Amino acid sequence: MSDDLLLRPIVIGSPAAIHIGPGTAAEVGRAAAARGITRALVVADPFNASRIDHLALDCRVETFADLPGEPDTRMLAAARTLADGYAPDLVVGFGGGSAMDLAKLVAVLAGSELRPADIVGVGRTPARKAMLAQVPTTAGTGSESGTRALVTDAENGAKLAVESPEMLADLVALDPHLAVTLPPQLTAETGIDALAHCVESFTSARSHPVIDLYAREGIRLIGRYLHRAVKDGGDLEARTGMALAALYGGYCLGPVNTTAGHAIAYPLSTRHGIAHGRANAIIFPHTLAFNATMIPERTTEILSLLGLEAAGPNAVFEVAHRFCRDLGIDMRLTSEQVAAGDLEAMASEAAAIRRLLDHNPRPVTRDDILHMYRAVI
Amino acid sequence: MSDDLLLRPIVIGSPAAIHIGPGTAAEVGRAAAARGITRALVVADPFNASRIDHLALDCRVETFADLPGEPDTRMLAAARTLADGYAPDLVVGFGGGSAMDLAKLVAVLAGSELRPADIVGVGRTPARKAMLAQVPTTAGTGSESGTRALVTDAENGAKLAVESPEMLADLVALDPHLAVTLPPQLTAETGIDALAHCVESFTSARSHPVIDLYAREGIRLIGRYLHRAVKDGGDLEARTGMALAALYGGYCLGPVNTTAGHAIAYPLSTRHGIAHGRANAIIFPHTLAFNATMIPERTTEILSLLGLEAAGPNAVFEVAHRFCRDLGIDMRLTSEQVAAGDLEAMASEAAAIRRLLDHNPRPVTRDDILHMYRAVI
Repeated sequence: MSDDLLLRPIVIGSPAAIHIGPGTAAEVGRAAAARGITRALVVADPFNASRIDHLALDCRVETFADLPGEPDTRMLAAARTLADGYAPDLVVGFGGGSAMDLAKLVAVLAGSELRPADIVGVGRTPARKAMLAQVPTTAGTGSESGTRALVTDAENGAKLAVESPEMLADLVALDPHLAVTLPPQLTAETGIDALAHCVESFTSARSHPVIDLYAREGIRLIGRYLHRAVKDGGDLEARTGMALAALYGGYCLGPVNTTAGHAIAYPLSTRHGIAHGRANAIIFPHTLAFNATMIPERTTEILSLLGLEAAGPNAVFEVAHRFCRDLGIDMRLTSEQVAAGDLEAMASEAAAIRRLLDHNPRPVTRDDILHMYRAVI
Repeated sequence: MSDDLLLRPIVIGSPAAIHIGPGTAAEVGRAAAARGITRALVVADPFNASRIDHLALDCRVETFADLPGEPDTRMLAAARTLADGYAPDLVVGFGGGSAMDLAKLVAVLAGSELRPADIVGVGRTPARKAMLAQVPTTAGTGSESGTRALVTDAENGAKLAVESPEMLADLVALDPHLAVTLPPQLTAETGIDALAHCVESFTSARSHPVIDLYAREGIRLIGRYLHRAVKDGGDLEARTGMALAALYGGYCLGPVNTTAGHAIAYPLSTRHGIAHGRANAIIFPHTLAFNATMIPERTTEILSLLGLEAAGPNAVFEVAHRFCRDLGIDMRLTSEQVAAGDLEAMASEAAAIRRLLDHNPRPVTRDDILHMYRAVI
């Protein structure tokens, strides 16, 4: 029990209204009508742009769908040009983390002269004038409940991180109908991203009992529903459970955040284009096992919440690895994907992410990281 | 497990920022400064009005403290007169449920011509222009996280119930320092009110897994901390735990709400002036035992979360009754407080509260209610 940590002040940020369940995407339209919204801007990937009827918007709607992947400053500039001419009073993020992050940035930057670099950091955005709604269609990033957005600088590839309470959504809809078309592989990988958010915050040196509530429930829901959602994409109960798990993972990110798992996974994505979810899945069993010796009780509890059991600390890796493999996730990287000669540079890069590594329950050296990379490639 | 209920759509309303922990009352002032607030109106009972320095407001502040008990339309009119002349851009509820409910009503009615009767019901308030912050100093009602407010019609004694998303706070601060002066009796009684919110929603026919998360955690925190807070008012960890339990109880009220316990307790307060918390405590063991035969598993789980155990269904009443008695709550009413001749009318009144009784897990007749009243008086 960690309730003695209750005396550490913490703040929970949350969207004012979170609608959960089949058909709730239409609550966006209902809320827009109630607020007298006249001009909505939907930020979506091309697939979701083709089904905005789910949002039941009964007003003028423009869609920005030029979102081929993770958002960069060029896409942001294009979306702002659209927003500046159109002056939406509602911005909707409709898709995965990329669409939701871009919607956040457009919502605070619309009508302003600021450049993205001007708002990097914490609390530096202008006040948001338009209503912001987020409708996730994957269950992974938890961006819908958070105040952070990432955008890549198209000039130099650097990640610009923006954090502001102004980017917290007014309304979130978790509608399982929207996830039924998500392929099994993407379901599995994004699901492990949500799991990593919960597990890393639960085992962080900064863990907090108020956030542990969400972390535990997220892990339990993933243990109960992720295999079901992968096996049968149309299982609405499993899709709802996973949407909730991702939301709870998002709650873990704000005040506590991730630790070694995400830090070590980052270079796989930034340098080699491995999808964020898969990168986290590949690293997950390694950091869980690495930390187990330091926090055996929490590790046992995580496995138990997932419906798993490890016969002793040495079995933690194998049990967690099998959990991911059984979801169909390809847990090995080939030398075509990641050249062995790059591992040293990757390890140096990961070892420098102190804002995450410093809260890992067990100190992690560059050599520890290199050892993990060598085990997966 | 009740996760198969995930397919029933539900909406969770939550303040955008909830600050938890010692000293967090000062976050009101910090947030006000960040938003450029110039004129704050604090709605408080006389005791809390004497210590608004906890809020660290660095702007002009007016205090409405003419709040001798539960709010009525006369107090509301007086508070509105103050607000209309002053035009606050921040309204703070600072106290128990009465101060917080009145703050909600003033915040939506300020600057409007509407009468209280005009906004009775759901979603009928004007849009709120001022920021709204809630700082509870008791741990009971959960009003800080909710969208409802009650005000008594000073003309005829009727309760006017107003519900609107416009009354949801922008900021809540749960600061245990503010509760250390709360006397043991009030700590115990308001704590059982919070427990009743969690237990009645957890056992409601409308219970929902998303709300069960809060109900279970609220019950667990009360089992862990209520006795400690009663025994040592300065136990900040226990005070924080109880503040959280009340917050979670508030989450239970919005989408699920209470059942027979609150319905049967109401006439004790409305007709005989028994404090709301004590009335709920007196009825609590009776409804828990009454429902136990219908929902034995959930009843066992409730007792277990409280750290209690009942040897069979017949022992449920005794165990729950002792839990309340051990907190120092006077569990019997005298015939001076409630005349035996009034019980029939009270039973008829309680039996008519169908909006709550209809969701009780076991059907409750007027005779069942009369039987409970006879057992406590």
